[in-house]
Amino acid sequence: MVERRNSVDAGLRQRAARVVPGGLWGHLNAARLPDGYPQFFAAAEGCRVRDVDGNEYVDMMCSWGPIVLGHRHPAVEAAVRRQLDLGNCMNGPGAVLVELSELLVGMIAHADWAMLQKNGTDATTTCVTLARAGTGRRKVLVARGSYHGSAPWCTPSVVGVTAEDRAHLVPFDYNDIASLEAAADAADGDLAAILVAAFRHDLARDQELPDPAFARRARAICDAADAALIVDDVRAGFRIDLGGSWEPVGVRPDLASWSKAIANGYPLAAVTGNDRFREAAQKIFVTGSFWCEAAPMAAAIATLTELREQDGIAGMVAMGTRLRAGLDRLAARHATPIRQTGPVQMPMVLFDDDPDFAKGDLFCATALRHGAYLHPRHTMFLSTAHREADIDRVLAAADAGFAAVRGMRR
Amino acid sequence: MVERRNSVDAGLRQRAARVVPGGLWGHLNAARLPDGYPQFFAAAEGCRVRDVDGNEYVDMMCSWGPIVLGHRHPAVEAAVRRQLDLGNCMNGPGAVLVELSELLVGMIAHADWAMLQKNGTDATTTCVTLARAGTGRRKVLVARGSYHGSAPWCTPSVVGVTAEDRAHLVPFDYNDIASLEAAADAADGDLAAILVAAFRHDLARDQELPDPAFARRARAICDAADAALIVDDVRAGFRIDLGGSWEPVGVRPDLASWSKAIANGYPLAAVTGNDRFREAAQKIFVTGSFWCEAAPMAAAIATLTELREQDGIAGMVAMGTRLRAGLDRLAARHATPIRQTGPVQMPMVLFDDDPDFAKGDLFCATALRHGAYLHPRHTMFLSTAHREADIDRVLAAADAGFAAVRGMRR
Repeated sequence: MVERRNSVDAGLRQRAARVVPGGLWGHLNAARLPDGYPQFFAAAEGCRVRDVDGNEYVDMMCSWGPIVLGHRHPAVEAAVRRQLDLGNCMNGPGAVLVELSELLVGMIAHADWAMLQKNGTDATTTCVTLARAGTGRRKVLVARGSYHGSAPWCTPSVVGVTAEDRAHLVPFDYNDIASLEAAADAADGDLAAILVAAFRHDLARDQELPDPAFARRARAICDAADAALIVDDVRAGFRIDLGGSWEPVGVRPDLASWSKAIANGYPLAAVTGNDRFREAAQKIFVTGSFWCEAAPMAAAIATLTELREQDGIAGMVAMGTRLRAGLDRLAARHATPIRQTGPVQMPMVLFDDDPDFAKGDLFCATALRHGAYLHPRHTMFLSTAHREADIDRVLAAADAGFAAVRGMRR
Repeated sequence: MVERRNSVDAGLRQRAARVVPGGLWGHLNAARLPDGYPQFFAAAEGCRVRDVDGNEYVDMMCSWGPIVLGHRHPAVEAAVRRQLDLGNCMNGPGAVLVELSELLVGMIAHADWAMLQKNGTDATTTCVTLARAGTGRRKVLVARGSYHGSAPWCTPSVVGVTAEDRAHLVPFDYNDIASLEAAADAADGDLAAILVAAFRHDLARDQELPDPAFARRARAICDAADAALIVDDVRAGFRIDLGGSWEPVGVRPDLASWSKAIANGYPLAAVTGNDRFREAAQKIFVTGSFWCEAAPMAAAIATLTELREQDGIAGMVAMGTRLRAGLDRLAARHATPIRQTGPVQMPMVLFDDDPDFAKGDLFCATALRHGAYLHPRHTMFLSTAHREADIDRVLAAADAGFAAVRGMRR
């Protein structure tokens, strides 16, 4: 076992417990992770993150998605600093708003226009509002278990949420055509939209790519009802296909939500849409104090340009393939069956016969001590900064993790 | 009349019209302003902004609130760059999260804890969710015409919004005790919260400071019903009183929402609360991909420290007083009655006998050509970067504006 310090982290957690409810809100709360995970980070560079005690890890979470070129990518950092040297939050946007919007419209297959926000939740909420504005109808079909943000209408917890916040949502099961058709029937002339994740990436279950027949049926239902097909590309966007994550499936949405990887960690979200919804987009009122800040737009231009020019997705696929093959080899060697699902560049690793995630937790806690920051139940993320040596270091840490799991007394 | 160029702005608008619905979303859309206002900005420094054609203005909007120390304040910029040189968006927050939360709890009178977000709308929405989670009740009393954000439950436009989004809101009139009591009665055992702006700053009408008797009644109603008093300090926060905008009134909320000025233009929002709502705050699930980014927190620490150390609010009050007195003198000299309302550091200037805002529009459009960026219908904002010479330049521009209004043929 590798020696790890955590005294600075422990001290900060004690202080945080007094002034932040539960020590931290939301998905980055380390209490949701196995014991031993640090809560506070000091620095990051490329695919490495360093916690406040100086422990360094190969980062397989990439800040839960945003870091797609590696932390502190030189081209992005330079673009941000150039913009900050001029101005960031002004009485209107900079020219970068136009440049970025043109870039998105040119790159994303279905997009005739773009709007920019801050949170993924801003983008998904705006898509739903747009669908209702454009159709004059109310019902939105949403897959059970899909995460679309943390506003009252979509947050996974219903604490503090009223029944009315979700009054017009109709559930279906991802990739299940019959359930989708039943939900559309239930919407009964009031169908505004089908909202569907780019692929199935629910917490703590096997990921699923979209079944092309399912995707085509969703498109056909929306066309028949004159409703909006919304693909939520917040998590997957810019890691599957720069033209949109359903391009490989051959189905184009009317509206899509983006965030996470769009600006390599700078706060930005986007809605893209086709001309059917342009007028609706002019009529709704959505805004935010920082939605026009220029630096994240400059970061996004640099990020998307870099991804395109270096064929970043191919690089992530190559490294993700290396990781998946390596983990499969290790699992076989340790006679410990695992399931790896979804796109290789967005790994999910779950252990067979692990109902309480005890195996996954031990695997990850052990790998952490050996220098790899993994997640036992959530989509992980590759960046273009991950190289063969980094993947191999993760595999070495995983080897220790598998050995620990094999040694579990149950 | 001063010569102004606008060809670069016009070119960008043409391009934007193709790829952004309506050219721009939300409150920064220059189409909402008199003819002649630029849409796109190139740079900003102190209290000056420069548009993409090189025209420079004394900035009396401060990006609609966020810029409280002046654009590109050295201490804030240095703090941001120091943090960016280490890391920004990581797998957890930096130590700055704890430092900022401690600073907020130490500074804001009612606060036992803080949570951080990105948009003012995130903060107001979280306050409402918290009130419902903490009380187990649903009704929220909201003043007619108050702006609390752009989510479906609160956006001023109802396009794309369903009736259910606002099912549990009960309206009252700001500063009207009888209407507040009637609304509380209507909530009838289901009262979760009273949500009230720090002062009345509705679009296109005279601003009103909170009547202390009204504020005390709101507090008493919440106490009697065990409901939450929420003060929305997104717009006014850190410009009235660093302890909270109702400190001068002598009434403390249970929950408050903050954003705008908190980090001098970097994207950050906050909810502060007392210990009554700490447990609720641990139970709800709210989060965002960028809510833990470290650079805006570093910016906030620098901003609030600077405001406190230089007694920034007193400085803004002094300059706001100079502006108000000067405008009153000019209005009298031009025999053109105006109304100046609300805090001097957050000016609102409306013309008497101006139902269609034709006077205000001409006044502002003329002042713009003379180098002052004013708003005809919205709260304006001072920063600590505004000095006597800047105010005097605004007054010179206003003199031209008054002359134009006096010369109107109606």
